[in-house]
Amino acid sequence: MIAITTIGTYLPENRVSNLAQLEKFETDETFIREKIGVVQRAVKASEQKTSDLCIKAFEDLMTKKALDKSTVDCCVVVTQNPDLNIPHTSAIVHSALGLPETCACFDISLGCSGYVYGLSIISAFMQANGFKTGLLFTADPYSDIIDSDDKNTALIFGDGATVTLLEENQPGLVALGYDFGTKGAGYKNLVNEDKLYMNGRAVFNFTAGVVPKSIEKLLQRLDLDKRDIGKWYLHQGSKYIVDTITMRLGLEPEKVVFNMYEYGNTVSSSIPMLLSNDLNQFKSGQKIGLSGFGVGLSWASAIFEMK
Amino acid sequence: MIAITTIGTYLPENRVSNLAQLEKFETDETFIREKIGVVQRAVKASEQKTSDLCIKAFEDLMTKKALDKSTVDCCVVVTQNPDLNIPHTSAIVHSALGLPETCACFDISLGCSGYVYGLSIISAFMQANGFKTGLLFTADPYSDIIDSDDKNTALIFGDGATVTLLEENQPGLVALGYDFGTKGAGYKNLVNEDKLYMNGRAVFNFTAGVVPKSIEKLLQRLDLDKRDIGKWYLHQGSKYIVDTITMRLGLEPEKVVFNMYEYGNTVSSSIPMLLSNDLNQFKSGQKIGLSGFGVGLSWASAIFEMK
Repeated sequence: MIAITTIGTYLPENRVSNLAQLEKFETDETFIREKIGVVQRAVKASEQKTSDLCIKAFEDLMTKKALDKSTVDCCVVVTQNPDLNIPHTSAIVHSALGLPETCACFDISLGCSGYVYGLSIISAFMQANGFKTGLLFTADPYSDIIDSDDKNTALIFGDGATVTLLEENQPGLVALGYDFGTKGAGYKNLVNEDKLYMNGRAVFNFTAGVVPKSIEKLLQRLDLDKRDIGKWYLHQGSKYIVDTITMRLGLEPEKVVFNMYEYGNTVSSSIPMLLSNDLNQFKSGQKIGLSGFGVGLSWASAIFEMK
Repeated sequence: MIAITTIGTYLPENRVSNLAQLEKFETDETFIREKIGVVQRAVKASEQKTSDLCIKAFEDLMTKKALDKSTVDCCVVVTQNPDLNIPHTSAIVHSALGLPETCACFDISLGCSGYVYGLSIISAFMQANGFKTGLLFTADPYSDIIDSDDKNTALIFGDGATVTLLEENQPGLVALGYDFGTKGAGYKNLVNEDKLYMNGRAVFNFTAGVVPKSIEKLLQRLDLDKRDIGKWYLHQGSKYIVDTITMRLGLEPEKVVFNMYEYGNTVSSSIPMLLSNDLNQFKSGQKIGLSGFGVGLSWASAIFEMK
């Protein structure tokens, strides 16, 4: 039984204010606070690479749990902004951290659904290979690929990274089940050719359509009711999308975590960024719901229980 | 129990002769045939993208087995040369093939060890999620990133793609065990910044050092002897490296498959390219060995048995 036991996070100190750009983007503070939900964005130094952000998240993890690096069996990085396309960023992280030669490393290319997918992929891989200790990194610094004049993206995304420690037979969050899906036909609504392009309306409509159904389907399969779930961690795409999913699913708003005001949408890091704050507070038996959605177009939902 | 049941392959028809470049690279035919083992290289059309190569491999798969696409539960692409960094290429393949919305899609970023890793990742993911049908694509067209004047790479790599159909409870090859490893500290010996750079000597020494040990370790763990293995499918890095591993492990040369003369080193496609020819000939109970190695630096070995 593989459990999430500790999460390390990193947000660059440098912040860029959205409120300072109201005029440029012909918008107002209410829209920034109530619809986007991002007041300022975390932006990395231009020379910081994805692996550098991962290392910072790992340093935070080590302050929470003194991990013996020689015990790490696998190291997975979820990113679509690797340091280089060759090699995989997990090999660079492996080198920087001095992980053992027996450590299996690979990257997963996914966007905002990447954390939930990644949890299933690494847990299954660990279980199948008898691994006891795994690291799942998320880091997708969009500041490198965003056109700062594009209203559809420039006010939303922030940089950050997380690392989730997964361990066998330790107290922690254990998956009860997953639901995955893909609408490849819509992939052109969120692509990076020269700069990131997002058709915000299309991505919103996609999400509002598929995510509530995905969560309903998963609850039904697990024979659970919405009220059995203590907290919901939805990808922080924008305040408006989190509010819309909450409403459509009829979730109790106080159970739905929202917090990206001070750093922005950190792509695959958004869910573990929130989860890291709460991980020590879950009581045995408490269930939580996760759902990530975006690039692909892709979605992944999961229910976890504290064991 | 997840089994490899069918493999589709694609090699571009266009070939570039290495023998026509003996003078340019100050080499001779013996070196080309006996050390490199590539007489001509398959090179895709410049406008063909990674997803296009995957679709061609899928078309070949369909001539071997009429797969009902609506039954595909997951679609994974192993590549370090995606069509774009955002989205993952598996989403584009999902769109082109018209796979169902319930199909989970992600890319794995790995080089020449990617097929063996990918088999473990997708099988474990399928098993954990109760999936019955999965597609594992490999496609890494290096012709886009190679400097045609660089002797260390220009005579070696060819373009190609494969797709492996994995099915639950069907006759096919089933994994008995895997061994994985990473030497991230050596990653700079095989990188793509502007163009692909390979320190051929360093990569050779790495491979000749770790791969025999990886295979020995795996056989020992599975309580098997080299002579229990009917055929060996080693990544076709070069004839010299395959011969060296064969010698160091003391394998019977006639059991070690080698064939890249007419198309080159197709990265993560090299092993399934060979396996596809032999898949129908394995008898129940026959065991085969696989090992991939390269970018990362990374390696993965596996023993499969026909069930």
